Amino acid sequence: MPHIVVLGAGRSATILISYLFQQAGILGWRVTVADLFVNHLTPPDQDHLRIIPLNIQDEDQLILEVKAADLIISMLPAFWHPKIARLCVQYRKNLITASYVRPELKELHQAAKEANLLFLMEAGLDPGIDHMSAMAILNNIRQKGGKIMSYKSYTGGLVSPESDNNPWHYKFTWNPRNVVLAGQGTAKYLEDGCHKFIPYHQLFNRAESLEIPDLGAFDGYANRDSLLYQEPYGLREVQTLIRGTLRRRGYCQAWHLLVQLGLTDDAYQLPESRHLTYRQFLESYLPAAPPLQTSWLARIASYLNIAPDNEALSLLEYLEFPEEPIALEQATPAQVLEKLLLQKWQLEPHDKDMVVMQHLITYVLNGETKELTSSLVVRGEDQTNTAMAKTVGLPVGMAAKLILEGKLKHTGIVIPTHPDIYEPILHELKIYGIYFTEEERTI
Amino acid sequence: MPHIVVLGAGRSATILISYLFQQAGILGWRVTVADLFVNHLTPPDQDHLRIIPLNIQDEDQLILEVKAADLIISMLPAFWHPKIARLCVQYRKNLITASYVRPELKELHQAAKEANLLFLMEAGLDPGIDHMSAMAILNNIRQKGGKIMSYKSYTGGLVSPESDNNPWHYKFTWNPRNVVLAGQGTAKYLEDGCHKFIPYHQLFNRAESLEIPDLGAFDGYANRDSLLYQEPYGLREVQTLIRGTLRRRGYCQAWHLLVQLGLTDDAYQLPESRHLTYRQFLESYLPAAPPLQTSWLARIASYLNIAPDNEALSLLEYLEFPEEPIALEQATPAQVLEKLLLQKWQLEPHDKDMVVMQHLITYVLNGETKELTSSLVVRGEDQTNTAMAKTVGLPVGMAAKLILEGKLKHTGIVIPTHPDIYEPILHELKIYGIYFTEEERTI
Repeated sequence: MPHIVVLGAGRSATILISYLFQQAGILGWRVTVADLFVNHLTPPDQDHLRIIPLNIQDEDQLILEVKAADLIISMLPAFWHPKIARLCVQYRKNLITASYVRPELKELHQAAKEANLLFLMEAGLDPGIDHMSAMAILNNIRQKGGKIMSYKSYTGGLVSPESDNNPWHYKFTWNPRNVVLAGQGTAKYLEDGCHKFIPYHQLFNRAESLEIPDLGAFDGYANRDSLLYQEPYGLREVQTLIRGTLRRRGYCQAWHLLVQLGLTDDAYQLPESRHLTYRQFLESYLPAAPPLQTSWLARIASYLNIAPDNEALSLLEYLEFPEEPIALEQATPAQVLEKLLLQKWQLEPHDKDMVVMQHLITYVLNGETKELTSSLVVRGEDQTNTAMAKTVGLPVGMAAKLILEGKLKHTGIVIPTHPDIYEPILHELKIYGIYFTEEERTI
Repeated sequence: MPHIVVLGAGRSATILISYLFQQAGILGWRVTVADLFVNHLTPPDQDHLRIIPLNIQDEDQLILEVKAADLIISMLPAFWHPKIARLCVQYRKNLITASYVRPELKELHQAAKEANLLFLMEAGLDPGIDHMSAMAILNNIRQKGGKIMSYKSYTGGLVSPESDNNPWHYKFTWNPRNVVLAGQGTAKYLEDGCHKFIPYHQLFNRAESLEIPDLGAFDGYANRDSLLYQEPYGLREVQTLIRGTLRRRGYCQAWHLLVQLGLTDDAYQLPESRHLTYRQFLESYLPAAPPLQTSWLARIASYLNIAPDNEALSLLEYLEFPEEPIALEQATPAQVLEKLLLQKWQLEPHDKDMVVMQHLITYVLNGETKELTSSLVVRGEDQTNTAMAKTVGLPVGMAAKLILEGKLKHTGIVIPTHPDIYEPILHELKIYGIYFTEEERTI
């Protein structure tokens, strides 16, 4: 009986666990789910399914679980993956994760290959379904003899329209800290054959307008390094290559103001944060108040050189920056902003999330230039069966099935850009309502 | 015969060396000047004066020179000072530098104190003359019973009016790389009793207007951490405390555009910099060109949301960003910009530099609020006898005299905020034409 050990049972793992438990009965697997906190999970009443408390920092116990597995799935935070991957090399176990292949993981590629192991990474939503669906389209165009000119792709974890009741059209459906820090560094991409660089303080000012069928207007801002996927996607000759993050129209323009003010900085601590109110915190980032009474929004407009009736100011107004104590010790500006946003962007118990992805591809076929738009919208059902947990967990679970059935011959660190991986997964995802709708026009 | 060893004989050390050589004859000192390159210095024809080549990285030779000294003066780049200071502790030598007391130097304070040594640092211009002149004014006000409400101080190394012939009103009279990177990080200061933070990308947009007698309009932008001097200056109760850098009016507004574009970033390399022209470099930071022909300046205006006739654009126009190869391998944006500016802001052989400093102090005395402005202007004579070399070197040389004459009883790491240090130095500086003019008014 093949034995899958899932490390990490957080919010994004719930659907994966259900899927594995269900498939285990059909396919004759043993499944162990291990995390520090597992009380939120319903204990299975079948002997081949186990939920166990595990302190990942307890190396002895961790090694016991790794040794007992045939396949490790790690849903732990990404910083754990170098350690987990090294144990998988040492004890000769295949591995699946939904997180990025960072440089320190790449170093293990050769060792994994030599041990005849498959480490399938970036196998969730973004990264994951983005790679799979992009490669399906790109390879299809190439097989017809088309030449890809431009590839753009945006993904967003958002709030579903029926739960969208604030002017930012956003709630935290994912790690709030990551949302506040999103985009820090320099974004690199390719546009009309030219390398483009966007400094963080301009990133949200450079968002691109997008239209999602049945949902309306969105903005997409560039991810850190779109060029990372030029090789894996086989896009060496492409003129435009950009990968980014989706937000509802209006969000980026207002977030740009918070960035310009300096409120998203995480590089230093506010020495007095414990004694400050949110309004005083904001005041620390504004030029001194003019002698005449001027509203804080008018002062921001004047400082940042935007019209006083700019729509983005109403999104800032919603945040209030109240005269309430922050009550955080030695917090960074980003931590203060996160605490304020947690009050404003909290997902309520009845709220539903939504995942949106769109690929925009221009290609030339038989002398005609075609524009293809492929869009995915997945809505969550409730706080457990979220769109995020579905889209991250299901492809991981399906990849596990492919590995245990011996259908994948790759070794080393692999991402799901290969047809033998993405074709069966995209096919099975359709059964779960996760599929793209395509529009194409000749331009 | 007391023996002074000067480590470092770069551009800022020339006047110091002349001063020491001259004083040596009068006061009976031996002076050794040691640096990797010393060919630009005129060899002295007196036995007690030596100029020697010394590779500072050759620890054995360095130790020989340190051991032979009674006092070490280091004019080396600041990163050498922890090492030099450790040797001074080990071999029990007093030390003077003109650079900042960084955290790794502070650790040596106790060791220097226990060895009964004086390490006098921040003894040049800025830091140096700024501390001395500020403390003279502040202590004078306090002695009269005044209460300091606000302290602002700005210093700039600039080009003298007769050599000022470009629209930036600036040339490189100092390390160009430091000019390009100036202000990176977050500026912290105190204004009206409130801590203020300015992110780098707003720093040059927040410059304060200043007026220097006989010279006209300047702008001052805040240094990294003005609060560092709240304790040493005895300004715990002050409402406003800011230290900054002076530029001619117009510079900051235009530099702000370069920062907003991202051209001053030094955190990553441009993979293709060898193959790019300056214009292509600029293009990498602009949104894609609109279909209709639009000038690059108009595109910058539109992108950065400023009027197309904004004066700052004419300063950018002066830089041209020509279609010339950058011819730098793997350069950072800041390195590319520095290379372009070196062509535009080069000090010509006949050009003269200028140092400007201004303190603005508000205090209350006998129920009246007074505003005191104290300004220093020093002009260079030629490329060797620059204002920078004078204002950095002379106070260091004068401090050396005080130490060798046994007039300073301090031990440990000390900056020149004490009357026994600053009074004789400010007095002697007057003889060399370095003095402040004060204006005061009741408001």
